[in-house]
Amino acid sequence: MRGMALVQAHCARREGRLKEHGQILLAHGGGGRMSRSLIEAEIAPRFGKGPLKGFPDAASLPDPDGPLVFTTDSFVVQPLEFPGGDIGKLAVHGTVNDICVCGGKPLWLSVGLILEEGLNISLLRRILDSLAAAADECGVTVVTGDTKVVARGQCDGLYINTSGIGRALPGFSLGPEMIRPGDAVLASGPLGDHGMAVLCAREAVLSGTGPMSDTGPVHRLVAAAADMAGAVRFMRDPTRGGVAAVVNEAVHGTPCGVALDEQNIPVSPATRSAAELLGLDILHVASEGRILLFCAPEACDPILTAWKAIPEGRNACRMGTVTADAGSVLLNTLAGGRRLVDMPQGELLPRIC
Amino acid sequence: MRGMALVQAHCARREGRLKEHGQILLAHGGGGRMSRSLIEAEIAPRFGKGPLKGFPDAASLPDPDGPLVFTTDSFVVQPLEFPGGDIGKLAVHGTVNDICVCGGKPLWLSVGLILEEGLNISLLRRILDSLAAAADECGVTVVTGDTKVVARGQCDGLYINTSGIGRALPGFSLGPEMIRPGDAVLASGPLGDHGMAVLCAREAVLSGTGPMSDTGPVHRLVAAAADMAGAVRFMRDPTRGGVAAVVNEAVHGTPCGVALDEQNIPVSPATRSAAELLGLDILHVASEGRILLFCAPEACDPILTAWKAIPEGRNACRMGTVTADAGSVLLNTLAGGRRLVDMPQGELLPRIC
Repeated sequence: MRGMALVQAHCARREGRLKEHGQILLAHGGGGRMSRSLIEAEIAPRFGKGPLKGFPDAASLPDPDGPLVFTTDSFVVQPLEFPGGDIGKLAVHGTVNDICVCGGKPLWLSVGLILEEGLNISLLRRILDSLAAAADECGVTVVTGDTKVVARGQCDGLYINTSGIGRALPGFSLGPEMIRPGDAVLASGPLGDHGMAVLCAREAVLSGTGPMSDTGPVHRLVAAAADMAGAVRFMRDPTRGGVAAVVNEAVHGTPCGVALDEQNIPVSPATRSAAELLGLDILHVASEGRILLFCAPEACDPILTAWKAIPEGRNACRMGTVTADAGSVLLNTLAGGRRLVDMPQGELLPRIC
Repeated sequence: MRGMALVQAHCARREGRLKEHGQILLAHGGGGRMSRSLIEAEIAPRFGKGPLKGFPDAASLPDPDGPLVFTTDSFVVQPLEFPGGDIGKLAVHGTVNDICVCGGKPLWLSVGLILEEGLNISLLRRILDSLAAAADECGVTVVTGDTKVVARGQCDGLYINTSGIGRALPGFSLGPEMIRPGDAVLASGPLGDHGMAVLCAREAVLSGTGPMSDTGPVHRLVAAAADMAGAVRFMRDPTRGGVAAVVNEAVHGTPCGVALDEQNIPVSPATRSAAELLGLDILHVASEGRILLFCAPEACDPILTAWKAIPEGRNACRMGTVTADAGSVLLNTLAGGRRLVDMPQGELLPRIC
């Protein structure tokens, strides 16, 4: 605990110095408050018209055969291989899942590689094998690609960009503006496993007995909820910034809030132990194979039943309810109290994806 | 000249060492022979089915309203700003042009940023402004994006991935397999300006009087050739690896060859001086706003006339002819001789795009 507090203080000092000089900070990439401020200040004014308005995970593009869903993600995770996955698998799942949570069926992927001179080709092969297998499992085809090589010290082994195109599934009409008080908030499985697995691997904490990444596709979960599509309001995968970022962004600027129940938040034992050891709030830690889904109350049980029937949804649960408390996200704690769940502030977990 | 020979010898020694150990070399990203061998060994066996077959610059995807054209490119150019352009503008032109040379009209772009901690936000702003202006000029909309931040020393300032979607223009039926002996080989303008501008900027050679990058969009050039679409066989923008790579790849494995006429190869005076000073073969140097176009002989004059009527085509010319000499690319030199134009071998110009 004490170590983490020192790290936090060090990060805060470093951020203070950089901020004064108008420089990019690690926290600008963390998925929290700083990420949002960078997007609001630098991206929205230049590009925030049309499909980028509101910054969904993917753009919806007009097409006579039904809207196309288009998204992009760059992956810089470190280490390149971690318990439960690697950067290749993650690059497929991340982009596939962004299409899925926007109500799309993923079809085609691009793969852009930036390789560091000196990267072991045997490692590259393992990662490409893993990427290809993940694409097959998700039913997507890698249709175009690009490879760049930079000199030693100009990249950290290997970065991957995947962009993806899908087709909107009929029946979904999703967006934060669809959320209503009384809606149920569901999680498809245990939260935070990916972030904790990467952090433990990087810091050599709990090696061998630590958490396993949940990196995986959510296309079957979305397909399973499609029978109730009309009652689904909003879906998002809680990656960078975790549940706290997704739920805060969902209700930001709307007349709704969310009350989460700590006793119902699904967390695996290994991730709970690691988070306690490192003093991290599980609500801030990334998952890479889970969905948070907001739906009308009558759709809650049918969706949970459909999810529990498939392996990746077997630990699905309802973990909260939408309130009429505009913009406020509260946690009803195990101890019987309530606390505010804020957007993550800094960047304690860089390069998690 | 002597300096360049020493650099070449040094590069060759370094590559020899890395190759022995199964590691990635800078030359794997150079667009020449090593790039092709990496793709053939590691990418094609895993992904080279369907649209990736033959490795076009962009994939053609089925859609009821006419095929979609999908492509991706990562940009790692150094310096980030160079005479005539910057990484933001280049990232738009590179992807737009890949769609154009596949016979598509570019519509939508994604932008994935990888930022280094400490990057000046004022520099980021200039690059994003330039990127937005370039997108406007090309008539494409940035519809989705992603921002990652890595720690100091894990990236060199800023890398950008752009992926793009376009719609196939009617009438074009393009591919190396369409090329026939007797076809004309056209260039839309002076060659090699981008590569020489970046190299001179990086090496602080000829500063102030050196070449200017030709980075620019080719969508108007493709539109101008669309009246003769049925007679156009193949188009490609001569980026990494230059004319030598494009022409060799075009005829590789076909019954055709190409004879280029040195006297007709368009080169700007500043680029010619710089190439002579540095001992580089202009046919190996990248352009970022030019097209090489193969067409039936009767289409040559109409296309040149249409190109010369727009600013970016005013120096267009015919620079060669397709022969029946399978796979052979020859240059008829100014001195009256002939020499083989081979694929570029190593990597003298890393991080040109």
